[in-house]
Amino acid sequence: MSYIPYHEPGTITMLAGPCSIEDSEQMIEVAQTLKRLGLRWLRGGAFKPRTSPYSFQGLGEEGLQIMSAAAKQCGLSTLTEVVDTKNIELIMSYVDALQIGTRNMANFELLKAIGGATAQNHKPILFKRGMAATIDEWLSATEYLTQGGNPNIMLCERGIRTYETATRFTLDIAAVPVIHKRSLLPICVDVSHPAGHVDLVPALAKAAIAAGCDALMIEIHPCPQKAKSDGPQQLTMAHFEELLVELRNIAAAVGKVIV
Amino acid sequence: MSYIPYHEPGTITMLAGPCSIEDSEQMIEVAQTLKRLGLRWLRGGAFKPRTSPYSFQGLGEEGLQIMSAAAKQCGLSTLTEVVDTKNIELIMSYVDALQIGTRNMANFELLKAIGGATAQNHKPILFKRGMAATIDEWLSATEYLTQGGNPNIMLCERGIRTYETATRFTLDIAAVPVIHKRSLLPICVDVSHPAGHVDLVPALAKAAIAAGCDALMIEIHPCPQKAKSDGPQQLTMAHFEELLVELRNIAAAVGKVIV
Amino acid sequence: MSYIPYHEPGTITMLAGPCSIEDSEQMIEVAQTLKRLGLRWLRGGAFKPRTSPYSFQGLGEEGLQIMSAAAKQCGLSTLTEVVDTKNIELIMSYVDALQIGTRNMANFELLKAIGGATAQNHKPILFKRGMAATIDEWLSATEYLTQGGNPNIMLCERGIRTYETATRFTLDIAAVPVIHKRSLLPICVDVSHPAGHVDLVPALAKAAIAAGCDALMIEIHPCPQKAKSDGPQQLTMAHFEELLVELRNIAAAVGKVIV
Amino acid sequence: MSYIPYHEPGTITMLAGPCSIEDSEQMIEVAQTLKRLGLRWLRGGAFKPRTSPYSFQGLGEEGLQIMSAAAKQCGLSTLTEVVDTKNIELIMSYVDALQIGTRNMANFELLKAIGGATAQNHKPILFKRGMAATIDEWLSATEYLTQGGNPNIMLCERGIRTYETATRFTLDIAAVPVIHKRSLLPICVDVSHPAGHVDLVPALAKAAIAAGCDALMIEIHPCPQKAKSDGPQQLTMAHFEELLVELRNIAAAVGKVIV
Repeated sequence: MSYIPYHEPGTITMLAGPCSIEDSEQMIEVAQTLKRLGLRWLRGGAFKPRTSPYSFQGLGEEGLQIMSAAAKQCGLSTLTEVVDTKNIELIMSYVDALQIGTRNMANFELLKAIGGATAQNHKPILFKRGMAATIDEWLSATEYLTQGGNPNIMLCERGIRTYETATRFTLDIAAVPVIHKRSLLPICVDVSHPAGHVDLVPALAKAAIAAGCDALMIEIHPCPQKAKSDGPQQLTMAHFEELLVELRNIAAAVGKVIV
Repeated sequence: MSYIPYHEPGTITMLAGPCSIEDSEQMIEVAQTLKRLGLRWLRGGAFKPRTSPYSFQGLGEEGLQIMSAAAKQCGLSTLTEVVDTKNIELIMSYVDALQIGTRNMANFELLKAIGGATAQNHKPILFKRGMAATIDEWLSATEYLTQGGNPNIMLCERGIRTYETATRFTLDIAAVPVIHKRSLLPICVDVSHPAGHVDLVPALAKAAIAAGCDALMIEIHPCPQKAKSDGPQQLTMAHFEELLVELRNIAAAVGKVIV
Repeated sequence: MSYIPYHEPGTITMLAGPCSIEDSEQMIEVAQTLKRLGLRWLRGGAFKPRTSPYSFQGLGEEGLQIMSAAAKQCGLSTLTEVVDTKNIELIMSYVDALQIGTRNMANFELLKAIGGATAQNHKPILFKRGMAATIDEWLSATEYLTQGGNPNIMLCERGIRTYETATRFTLDIAAVPVIHKRSLLPICVDVSHPAGHVDLVPALAKAAIAAGCDALMIEIHPCPQKAKSDGPQQLTMAHFEELLVELRNIAAAVGKVIV
Repeated sequence: MSYIPYHEPGTITMLAGPCSIEDSEQMIEVAQTLKRLGLRWLRGGAFKPRTSPYSFQGLGEEGLQIMSAAAKQCGLSTLTEVVDTKNIELIMSYVDALQIGTRNMANFELLKAIGGATAQNHKPILFKRGMAATIDEWLSATEYLTQGGNPNIMLCERGIRTYETATRFTLDIAAVPVIHKRSLLPICVDVSHPAGHVDLVPALAKAAIAAGCDALMIEIHPCPQKAKSDGPQQLTMAHFEELLVELRNIAAAVGKVIV
């Protein structure tokens, strides 16, 4: 079966988009920006795992429709998070790649189900590290995904929980070389969640590229102050565009291109 | 609707049993011991969330049948862990109370589904703390359980992840008074998982009672060295019986009885 | 050489007193309370290691004179923290036992100097765990103290640094059985620093006794709201007296007396 | 007073050298390599704070003489760690800059003494973060150094203690932008201690430069397998030279030069 790989040698895949899919205008503006900048993927959350049940829980299937339409219009591939075994097929019918979030890294029933559902179609899976998982536990958990036969897994470091409160999570930048040493799987770095604030995103994104990441996840939003979730850590389109220039310089210095 | 409460004022509920349900003889021996010691609950794992897919995954429904038969014979109530939304009804048909494990504390889809499934029958839920969850996040997550209307939730501290490696997890004993200060929910302490080794279980169990816990979870096994999971941390029947005498002394010193 | 041992079998030594020595009236009131309650030791800080240089730094030698006079009047032994190699002799001339604080656990020059200065007189040393030290590192560091020949060391668990913010530090209660398993040294538990607030002190103190501690450190102050440091975590005399009744009940349940 | 600044705008200062000063040949080989590569500073430990008193403790003053001679021969400036108040003057008589290590970040007596001793000569101080210190505590502690009047402080992130064991410490790369946001002080990154192994050093060094560090500390040794301390994390001369080429490419991409 053919599939869209996350990763080709020499490239760094940019996985950008808003934390939550909110409406059509938002997603079209983001998609057009990504297309204009020569990027390939659009990400957005439709089923949101929120600490409180009283926070915005995502638009669900409607959100997937909105993202899918925006992506199609701009020729982008799409990625979204799956949070329950019962929605896998529905979500696969809309998007090109599935994300497993930090809170579900050790939800082994979900891993088995996603591994099984993608055994034939080899849809790419972005597998985030649990916020208190060791690298060993994280790699071990990938076997729940791959035992069905889907080899198309990308790991995603997104910050771990430590005593430090100056950042939302502590980005474990050493996870990049450790994964490269221990595993053949490519490694993405989500720089928005550890940062927790846009001011810290550029430095973390540059560090991730220099450390050798294979993909980068950055949350962006046309109007972050109106975002329904994680506003403070989402970059505006203009800020993202400006940052991308710098990131491409560093990528070039390590012999890669950002796509 | 009537239900079996975990907690009555002045009592400490003992939730003992093996890590995994393995066979009928094992469960009958455990159940008879608990009955003889004047205890009320039998716990055992049938669906096991294991770090590696190559470790023993539990007996599933067959395990529930085994535990249920052993408990019925001795007049005990039963408790087991639920790990997926699709097994809730099946599990509820066998056991008296449902456990949500540490790996699923932030699996909000599972919480919503269990909250919904127990909204009418008010089955007790034992809700373990995520291994890297703050107390605030843990309390916030209870709202996914209670919004359906089931008030019968018991929290369970089971150790958090820290840099210390002398124990499997670091038991956050202060969680007991913190929960009593911030919440009306009763609080259980699982002393086996933080200990990781039987040698440390007695001191932690005594500390938990002295700190004011409302229930205590201890893993016991007729023959720990043959256990299919977590052997090193399970007490033999004889060791458990001996420990119980000491625990009852401390319970008496804080004006409580262990049941 | 004779010395005052911290620990006799079957006893739990109470090490109580204010965080900082502030004035004579304060120390006399504390000392008289301790004497009346049948306790033996008075503790107080004269040289304070404070996070900010603009916080109260302690009264220095004047503080030692105040504590010493109050203790003599009531027949108590005294304990204070040493924070620099150049003050060891001065401090030893006033107090019966020396404390090494959490910030100096890995200040090996200080350890060597204290070990040397007490090599002949065998003054007791209370050696607090570093706030991010493993138990292995802590035990290893004791060798800097004991290599001069002073065997009279007591370890003191005082909470470790974790991601949890509901308490000031996370009391690692399992350190008590771990130390008893690995070492012959007695173990004290400082319950005030991990608690950070008086509301949590009673539960932690009870847990420490039940877990088997050999000594207990509790901060008390005649008027905590006027304390120059750590006011929120210091008990009033009345509160301490009331708590002591409960602690003695638990001590009795584990076959010990508090002195 | 004139002094050698660690940091000039647009430069990244390389602070390289062995963990411990061992002998003259070692230091001369390192110094010649640094000179040939156009670097300015030589670092080495003479007074070593080791977890066990039975580990190599450093050559003391003899080590300072060796390093000083090697540096003079090659026109380099020197840096070494101070571990006790009583050696400050001795050490200042040999080296150009003083390091305060992670174990002494909260040894406030040492900080006050170093702040005082450098109040007039404004010798540069490299101030490492405590391995469990928050950024707030670290910045607050700088005031013990600066209140005497020495403005020439450089902070040094060197990894914090977390539950992850794949690396020796977790490099908190976000400390770089956080310090730049909150403070005017330059920030160095010690990449050898968090790595714990040479295999991880290159990725961390590249990340540090990309994140915006003002200086970089890397441990190098002519023959790491014979090193008396921290052998596994020290680069050979050849490996360091090769890495430096890559680091200079990344420095150029962020508009800086490594000196």
